[in-house]
Amino acid sequence: MFSRRLFSSYNPRCSCLPHRRSYATTLPPTIKQLLASPSTKQQDGQAKPQPQKVEVTGWVRSIRRHARISFAMITDGSTEKNLQAVVDTKLTKGLTNGVSVRLTGTLSDSPGPGQDKELVVENVECLGECDPEEYPIQKKALTVDYLRDHCHLRTRTAENASMVRLRHTTLKSLQDYFDNEGFCYAHTPITTANDCEGAGEAFLVTAPGIDEPASSTSSPAPSHFFGRPAYLTVSSQLHLEALASSISRVYTISPAFRAERSHTGRHLAEFWMLEAEWAFTRNVDDVCDVVEDSLKFALEKASENSKGDLNVLWGPDATEKLKILESAKDEAKKWTRMSYTEAVKELETFYAQAKNKPFEIEPKWGRSLGSEHERWIAEELVDGPVFVKDYPETLKPFYMRANEDGNTVGCFDLLVPGLGELVGGSVREERYDVLKKKVEDAGLKLEDYDWYLDLRKYGGAPHGGFGVGFERLVKWMSGVENIRECIPMPRWQGRMLL
Amino acid sequence: MFSRRLFSSYNPRCSCLPHRRSYATTLPPTIKQLLASPSTKQQDGQAKPQPQKVEVTGWVRSIRRHARISFAMITDGSTEKNLQAVVDTKLTKGLTNGVSVRLTGTLSDSPGPGQDKELVVENVECLGECDPEEYPIQKKALTVDYLRDHCHLRTRTAENASMVRLRHTTLKSLQDYFDNEGFCYAHTPITTANDCEGAGEAFLVTAPGIDEPASSTSSPAPSHFFGRPAYLTVSSQLHLEALASSISRVYTISPAFRAERSHTGRHLAEFWMLEAEWAFTRNVDDVCDVVEDSLKFALEKASENSKGDLNVLWGPDATEKLKILESAKDEAKKWTRMSYTEAVKELETFYAQAKNKPFEIEPKWGRSLGSEHERWIAEELVDGPVFVKDYPETLKPFYMRANEDGNTVGCFDLLVPGLGELVGGSVREERYDVLKKKVEDAGLKLEDYDWYLDLRKYGGAPHGGFGVGFERLVKWMSGVENIRECIPMPRWQGRMLL
Repeated sequence: MFSRRLFSSYNPRCSCLPHRRSYATTLPPTIKQLLASPSTKQQDGQAKPQPQKVEVTGWVRSIRRHARISFAMITDGSTEKNLQAVVDTKLTKGLTNGVSVRLTGTLSDSPGPGQDKELVVENVECLGECDPEEYPIQKKALTVDYLRDHCHLRTRTAENASMVRLRHTTLKSLQDYFDNEGFCYAHTPITTANDCEGAGEAFLVTAPGIDEPASSTSSPAPSHFFGRPAYLTVSSQLHLEALASSISRVYTISPAFRAERSHTGRHLAEFWMLEAEWAFTRNVDDVCDVVEDSLKFALEKASENSKGDLNVLWGPDATEKLKILESAKDEAKKWTRMSYTEAVKELETFYAQAKNKPFEIEPKWGRSLGSEHERWIAEELVDGPVFVKDYPETLKPFYMRANEDGNTVGCFDLLVPGLGELVGGSVREERYDVLKKKVEDAGLKLEDYDWYLDLRKYGGAPHGGFGVGFERLVKWMSGVENIRECIPMPRWQGRMLL
Repeated sequence: MFSRRLFSSYNPRCSCLPHRRSYATTLPPTIKQLLASPSTKQQDGQAKPQPQKVEVTGWVRSIRRHARISFAMITDGSTEKNLQAVVDTKLTKGLTNGVSVRLTGTLSDSPGPGQDKELVVENVECLGECDPEEYPIQKKALTVDYLRDHCHLRTRTAENASMVRLRHTTLKSLQDYFDNEGFCYAHTPITTANDCEGAGEAFLVTAPGIDEPASSTSSPAPSHFFGRPAYLTVSSQLHLEALASSISRVYTISPAFRAERSHTGRHLAEFWMLEAEWAFTRNVDDVCDVVEDSLKFALEKASENSKGDLNVLWGPDATEKLKILESAKDEAKKWTRMSYTEAVKELETFYAQAKNKPFEIEPKWGRSLGSEHERWIAEELVDGPVFVKDYPETLKPFYMRANEDGNTVGCFDLLVPGLGELVGGSVREERYDVLKKKVEDAGLKLEDYDWYLDLRKYGGAPHGGFGVGFERLVKWMSGVENIRECIPMPRWQGRMLL
């Protein structure tokens, strides 16, 4: 235990990583680590490095057979790159696309073009067969619908595997950002009695054999498992507010659920949200600052560490999509901020001057911005990410802080090209009396919000926060068309495989 | 944006942290960061550092008033330590326990005992009042039951705030460990058609207005929101197995749900689990190695970075509890491993020789280990963490790999003193025919496990994994008596506040 394993010296690692041992790991190196190992070419004035004996495990992605030697491309999912294995053709029996193998051999710089390193194989162990006729993941292009139907196998395709890795690195960079800013990662409840957005799209949770049938839950019956009706969370915000009133800075990455009836390319019934909430904000721009800073950080990290995966996902549009990402993450170019009122004025002017009706719904102060309006603002008016702030109070939930003007609230939506709303946030109403009136005006029961009002009653502090849909973020970064390809195992109305 | 803010030079940070800017942050420094700022004492041969003007936000934890000056202890939840604020008594009007404040002043080394630094206050801004008579979080000792009833305020106590921070740092060190070992953090579904453990304790999820009443869901009706009955996940394992068959190494930190009817100190209806799964394991000891290594890493990081919070949680038993932690994390002392068969032999011998019946249930090969047996093994026999391996096949789920002996499976439970089972894991049955027979023998429907069998049919690889209950882990580390204090907002039968 803790001893250096055979191949551990291949494990490339920043010496400052928060790991106690400098090189030794418990597990053998991945293909990503092997590909990053030092060159075996002779360096000036140094002894020629010896190619090292390594063991590689993974799956055959393709194989080219020649009379004497064959070339198998091996993947283990650790990187978008394959490792080229040079194998005596006599040893390749049974090696077809999808087979899992354990190979031993020597790793050295590749003399051929197309890859830096190759494995000259001495021994092949076939671990799991894969009938080339029957295998559902054939090498030809497979439709997204077909792959959704084969959800359990679809991460075997390059695109879906790249998405899983992009999620991982994006998650990590966001966590690094918030940890670094002194935020505490807190787990908020998934089952809850509250419906934060009040949209009536919450799923109900029951315990078979204990709860009454779902149809009779309109009045809480003592037979509920939790003693009252339980719903799946639609947002962790209210719970985070409770924690922010003692821990100051908190965030969570939590699943959220909406029984959405709409089948769009940007809605899921189950999705993940990063939500941050912190005390002692001064205004809504404070909240926008953290949003912009954290997302630019994530974009920068992705362009540093996930270029390979992004290229796989970008496909033929890579050049253009890289430009969009580079432009969005530019520190010198602050994202546009405008008020809802300004945005509506622009929309109205455009609508009035257009020859053909450019929108289904005429923009007007006091009306919601539709997807068509949001995209026009981000794509045509601004051509980049844009914060639209200070919406009319009537359009937004009760917890947003009333502005001095008496008819707007201190909130924002971040709109981005190709997607629309990516982030929503606000400063929260911290004034007890104002909030109490807003709860009543919204037709909510005061007793359900007793605890929420308590947060203002006892040492309440100005605070704010936001939520970013994680799948929307990776959709934006990757340019993937439908959000159903942005999560490994998507759920939407009528669809729940596995 | 991105400019250095007023106080950003106070922000202490390892220069190797994966953050692009070396010091500037978006937000002002926390009390934790201020307390870690450089000393204002003169160093040999250097100019005397000037005390810096800072702004501090937080809550008054206590205040001692004297005729001329007063001492207020300020917390912002970033650390278990308070910042002592030295305030002109004339400015302290309204400053009572729980009030939120913004203070400006100079931070310098404290001349008094008990703290390194203090804030000499120039200006006090009271942000939120807190009626000292009514405030539910009085300074006297409050019972755990009272605090559970005031769940939204309980992180204002030192113990509950320390638990939130301990969770954060433990989560972070576990993530660092797995990231470092080449694992990919993947989000697995929360709503699922599968009941991994088959224990019949899964919650049902319905969409009001779409689904049939819960009582009629025994046969899937087309009116289900997802087209079939949906449950809350009890384990992410099967989904992780699908991902591990392409990404090789995956882990998740996911909520899990059991409609537990038992009211013990170590069960919750909603809890968090870290589950890891990886391909190309050779045997169950490979899995134990990763468990031991990752947990020792988390213990070591906690003893480095969370000593203050652990001391708060340990209370008067700190010395003894530190010893237990130090012993468990000792790299040189490998955790005991024994087979179920050996463990039962020890239990039988002890049972036979004891004068008074030491267990409620007589231990016998083929029977489950009860909590009383598990704790005896960990506390009396071993006095430390112990892996019990290779349980009888009849006691374990269908997916565990059959051993060569024909009656046990390649699995383990990690038992720890004071708690019992902390981790469970196994190598999984990767042989298609063996697994198919096991599904049938378990009385499960083959068509429900088609996709799971596919993972073995097409390039299946030997693999294994484990799950650690996150609340159990922090309970073990902190020595906190009941698991309901190990999660900010606990849920159990009959209880779901907020």
